[in-house]
Parts: sequence; C-alpha cells; structure tokens
Amino acid sequence: MVARMVTGGEGKTVEELHEHLTRVIAKVRPVDPLCVARARDRLDHLTKPRGSLGRLEEIAARICGIQATTRPSATKRLVIVCAADHGVAAEGVSAYPSAVTPQMVANFVRGGAAINALARSVGADVWIVDIGVAGSIPASGDAAQLVARRIREGTRNMLREPAMSESEMLQAMAVGVEQATRAADQGVELLGIGDMGIGNTTAASAITAAVIRLPPRQVTGRGTGVDEATLLRKVDIIERTLATHRPRSDRPLEILQTVGGLEIAALCGVCLGGAARRLVVMTDGLITTAAALLAVELCPAVSEYVFAAHLSPEPGHAVQLERLGARPLLHLDMRLGEGTGAALAMTVVGAACAAFNEMATFESAGVCEGPC
Amino acid sequence: MVARMVTGGEGKTVEELHEHLTRVIAKVRPVDPLCVARARDRLDHLTKPRGSLGRLEEIAARICGIQATTRPSATKRLVIVCAADHGVAAEGVSAYPSAVTPQMVANFVRGGAAINALARSVGADVWIVDIGVAGSIPASGDAAQLVARRIREGTRNMLREPAMSESEMLQAMAVGVEQATRAADQGVELLGIGDMGIGNTTAASAITAAVIRLPPRQVTGRGTGVDEATLLRKVDIIERTLATHRPRSDRPLEILQTVGGLEIAALCGVCLGGAARRLVVMTDGLITTAAALLAVELCPAVSEYVFAAHLSPEPGHAVQLERLGARPLLHLDMRLGEGTGAALAMTVVGAACAAFNEMATFESAGVCEGPC
Repeated sequence: MVARMVTGGEGKTVEELHEHLTRVIAKVRPVDPLCVARARDRLDHLTKPRGSLGRLEEIAARICGIQATTRPSATKRLVIVCAADHGVAAEGVSAYPSAVTPQMVANFVRGGAAINALARSVGADVWIVDIGVAGSIPASGDAAQLVARRIREGTRNMLREPAMSESEMLQAMAVGVEQATRAADQGVELLGIGDMGIGNTTAASAITAAVIRLPPRQVTGRGTGVDEATLLRKVDIIERTLATHRPRSDRPLEILQTVGGLEIAALCGVCLGGAARRLVVMTDGLITTAAALLAVELCPAVSEYVFAAHLSPEPGHAVQLERLGARPLLHLDMRLGEGTGAALAMTVVGAACAAFNEMATFESAGVCEGPC
Repeated sequence: MVARMVTGGEGKTVEELHEHLTRVIAKVRPVDPLCVARARDRLDHLTKPRGSLGRLEEIAARICGIQATTRPSATKRLVIVCAADHGVAAEGVSAYPSAVTPQMVANFVRGGAAINALARSVGADVWIVDIGVAGSIPASGDAAQLVARRIREGTRNMLREPAMSESEMLQAMAVGVEQATRAADQGVELLGIGDMGIGNTTAASAITAAVIRLPPRQVTGRGTGVDEATLLRKVDIIERTLATHRPRSDRPLEILQTVGGLEIAALCGVCLGGAARRLVVMTDGLITTAAALLAVELCPAVSEYVFAAHLSPEPGHAVQLERLGARPLLHLDMRLGEGTGAALAMTVVGAACAAFNEMATFESAGVCEGPC
C-alpha cells in the first residue's frame, strides 16, 4: 500500500499558508478564568478534606477553564500519531534503519503496536497520519485509521541542507491543524499526540537546543537505545547542524524548518489547531513535547491547553517540560513514543473529571465539614 | 441502618484464631520465577525498543509471576474499603469528628464519595467493610456493597489502654482474610485496599514508628489537614502511647493490637488472604501501607504481591514504602485515603497487561529488530 500524496495546504502559496497559520493562532483564546474559579469553589465543597485529591483537583479546574464549563468531560479520546522519516538517519544516529518507520506504521494500522494496546486500554481511538514516511507501507489493516497526507518521503538530511522547504513545513503544519479540527468536529475532548520516525530524537534534540539555547549534549539522549559511540556522533551531528543553519532562538519556524521534521511540524499544527478548538492536548515524550514547545513559542496561550503526560528518561524532555512550566502526570520511565505515555495519562484526566462531576458535596451527603 | 454485629472469627478462641492465621500465612507462596523469566523474554521480542515501556514491563513480568501465567490479566478489579473508628480520636487528633466515619460510610454506600467516582472510572467494584464503625450508619443505598462485620464500636483509646484485645484484633484480621478469599472466589484479579476512620493516621503513624523504630515526629503528618498545634499534639500522643505500651518492633501483632485499628487489622488480613490466593494487591496511602507493612512483617513473601499505587505527602508513607522496597506508581499529591490512589493506579497495571498480551512481536509484524 502506498499512501496517496495529498497535502493539507496543497496548491497554496507560502503566503497563503502563513495567513492560514496566523488565523489559527488568532483563534487560540486564554482559558475561562471564571470557570476555573467556580471549579475551585466546587472542589472545596466535595466530600473530602480540602485539596486532598492533589493534582486531580488542579487538572479538573484547568479542564473547566479549557472547556469553559463546570461539567468537565474527558470521555471522547483520540491519539493522533504523526509519522515521517528523517534524512539525517543516513548519518547513523539510530539503532534502527529507516525501513522501520513504514513497518511500524503498518503495525499501527493492524493494531499490534504498544500505542494500539494502550489506547484500547484507556478507550481512545488512534489515527495514524503519514505526513512523510519514506517508502511504501507494507500491509493494510483497520485497527487504526491511516490518514494519507505525505508531503514528501522524509526530510532532507539537515546536516547538509534545511530539513524542509518553508512550503513543506507550512503544509505539514496545516495538515496537523486540519486533523485537530476534524477531531474537534467529531466531538473529541481529550487529544493525545504521538510520533513515529526513525531519527526523530535527533531532530527533537536539535529543536530543544535551539529554542532553549543549550548545548546539544545537555538535551540529547539514547533515543531507541544507541550505544555510547553513536550517542557521541549524534551530539556531534546536532552541533554541526546547528552551526550550519544557525536558526535564531526567537524564530520557531526557522528552527522547525531547518532542524525539525515533517511529523514534528504536523504535531505542532495539532497543538495549535487543538488549542484553537479548546481541546485538552496531552503530550507524550521528547518529540511531541518539541512540537508543543514550538507551538507555545508561536502562541503562548497554547500552554494552558497542554498537559504533560509523563517524564521520559531522555535528558531533553525534563528541560522541555521545565521551559513549558508543565509538571508531568506520570513517572514510569517510558521512552517509547508513539503517544503511549499520552494514552496512559488519559485515565488520570478522566478520573479527575469523574471525581469532580460525580462526588457528593458535604451538604448533599449530610457529612460534617468540621466539628459538628 | 445499623450494621449487624457479625464477626469473621465469631465464637472462636484466641488459639483457634492464631491457628487460622498461621494456616493463611503458610499458604502464601513465592511468585513463579519461571513465568517471570518467560515474561521478560517475551517483552524483549515485542515491537518496541528493549525496555522502552519502562515500569510497565516490570509490572507485567511481576504479574506473570504472581498469577503463574504468561497471559497476565488485571481486568476484574475490586477495592475493599475497611472502615472503623478510633478511641484516640477523643484526644483531638483530627480536623473532623468521629461522626464523619459513619457519615462517610453512608456516602460510600450511596456512591457519592471520591472512591466511588474513581473506582467507576477504572471499572472497579467497591466493597465497604464496617469492621468497627461507632454509631449507626445514617442511610442506605446500593452503589457499593456494605459488608457488616463490626467487631466493636471503634477501638479503645490507645493512649490509655491497648487499642484492641488480642481476640478483637485476630477477629478483624480473619474478616480481612475472609473478604480477600471471597474476592478471589469471585474471580477478582486486581485487589485495591482502602480505609476510612477518623483518627486512623494517628494509629498508622504509631505503627510505622514502632515497626521501623523511628521517632514519631518523622512519620507523622497532617492527616486530613490539621493545624500546627494539632500536629504537635498528635506527635506527643503517639510518643506517649508508644512509651506506655512499648510494643517490640519484631512483634507485629503486639504493635497492631496496642496501637493499631480494627480497619488496619482487617486490611492486614486482606493483604495476607489476597497473597495466599495469588491476587495482585494494590496499597493506597499511609493507613493501607501500614497494614501491608504488618502483613510483610508477618509473612515476607507477601511483599511480592503488593504494588504501591502512589506516594502520599504524609511523611510516614515514603518511609513505609522504602521499608517495603516498593516504588510508587503515581505521584499525584493525593492524600484522601479510601483506596482512591489504589483505584487510579489500577489503570497502569491494566495497561501493562494489555501491552504485554496484545502487542505483536518483531517477527509476527515483519519489523526489523536492528539493521536490516
């Protein structure tokens, strides 16, 4: 099976794509402070000591603000996994060959990957967006929906030239916006994001180093599990890549275009499009958080819509989350990507909403609120 | 509604109750090492980088050992909440009066408490065991099953006399064993434990100090949220209580009888009875973990069956978990009790089993395991 070559911004000029992006960003509004305040008040009257549900209380209040409601809901769940290849994989930065990207996409579609199992276990659907896989996808299936939006067969090798043209990057972002919008139209409330792409921890670490202005060695890890020599080569390649393109830290699109990836651009679009439609957006590990970081650089209000699912052992991930001011919900040493952490953390958000909506108040239950 | 006065070991002598306990302890077997080894082997062949599911892999392998299977299951879920009052509450150690215990039991039975909402959100049933509530339970309902096994109306004030007689303690433990056995007979695979009882953080901190031989101030916290003066009084009462009874650190039953609680004794019985039937036992916060700690002191093999759901901010909880060698699954600042953390962590265990059972192998999915 070969994915059709359909693009989100097909036939549009770079100017038109920029205008589209500007309109999406303008749609992102701050969360509703009145609903947050009302939620906090309700939380203090539920039958439990004040604050005793810990972070579940903070989550429920934030979702009230995001959804502009006092009846938060996280029932309709979806993980959007964006997949693409990376030209820089030719430099030997991964333990796996690029052929694994289309093989794993086929595995997703047949339902045999970790993200399928975890999404099923939390009641989430999975969409796989082929935004730039190289080569044909070996087999079909129907466990997860394959969205064929291939912009090109992988990025260019960023060590030698910019990973994408401006148009390719903007098209990929437009596809992300389109998918988030489609999710919102279908009633999705909780949107997890995931990634697949051999070589993409190299791109994500380069983005992180560029945005936060840190030496690459501080934000680069072993990805799928490379050895020490490969890790050193990976750091060296990121250093040389950044020295070549010199993207400015205050120009997120320049960073994304030169050292990013098609799936990272699409995921950045999902964050922007999701926030524009007031969806709760759940990040996963290093790659999806790089996308969220760029989205927040482009539009700071996006940060209010983003929840950090978990903390991966990739050194760049903790740095990204600190920059975002996001505390991860889970600490389970997961480092698989695919949106697996995002899927698992959905149950925490669901539980927060359930407690908020379903618990009795001291008054309604006839329970003393203090000495009685 | 008044709970019937039915006891687990009703009519039995102390000697008979001791013999029963000894038989239960003898039934606890080490987990199956061959199944753990087979599980680890399978994990290394699933379509993911080795070890990349982090703690989910360790959980899946342990459950294979517990259930002596290579097809782990955590689908049938139950939280057993044991409720009882504490004579020491008369010393003013809680922000709430003892009347709240029966009021909250009624709230559980009607389905309006946090544990009801969280258990529903993870697909777990809830049983409430009235093992020693003081006073009548104001209203009935059917959202959670009420198991009437009241041994006496709360413990005695441990500051002045032992909290329980030996017979009362052993009867409460026998009820816990009975309920774990009933759960196993009904096919429960994942057993969460929870507590309700005004004053019970005082008892749990006293147990922790006695077992681990630490000064009470190091393991005593604010419970439901007492102020600084009450916290100091609470520490003082625990110190005086321990100075009065001087239970030996190597005599868990002496500790439980003198400074424990009826719900803690019952929960200790649930841990022993659950492990004897090879159930996965999930602890919650300070009170349930005090019960698990005593169970492990009585029978070290129990520790292999116990998972720590989360880390509460009560200072004694981290100390208990360190002693048990248990790493908590969640860090969400929850400090509510009732089994709420145990319920929420069930989804992590469920996800671990789902990934283990449902993922394709590299071979079956046609994915390269390395360079190909």
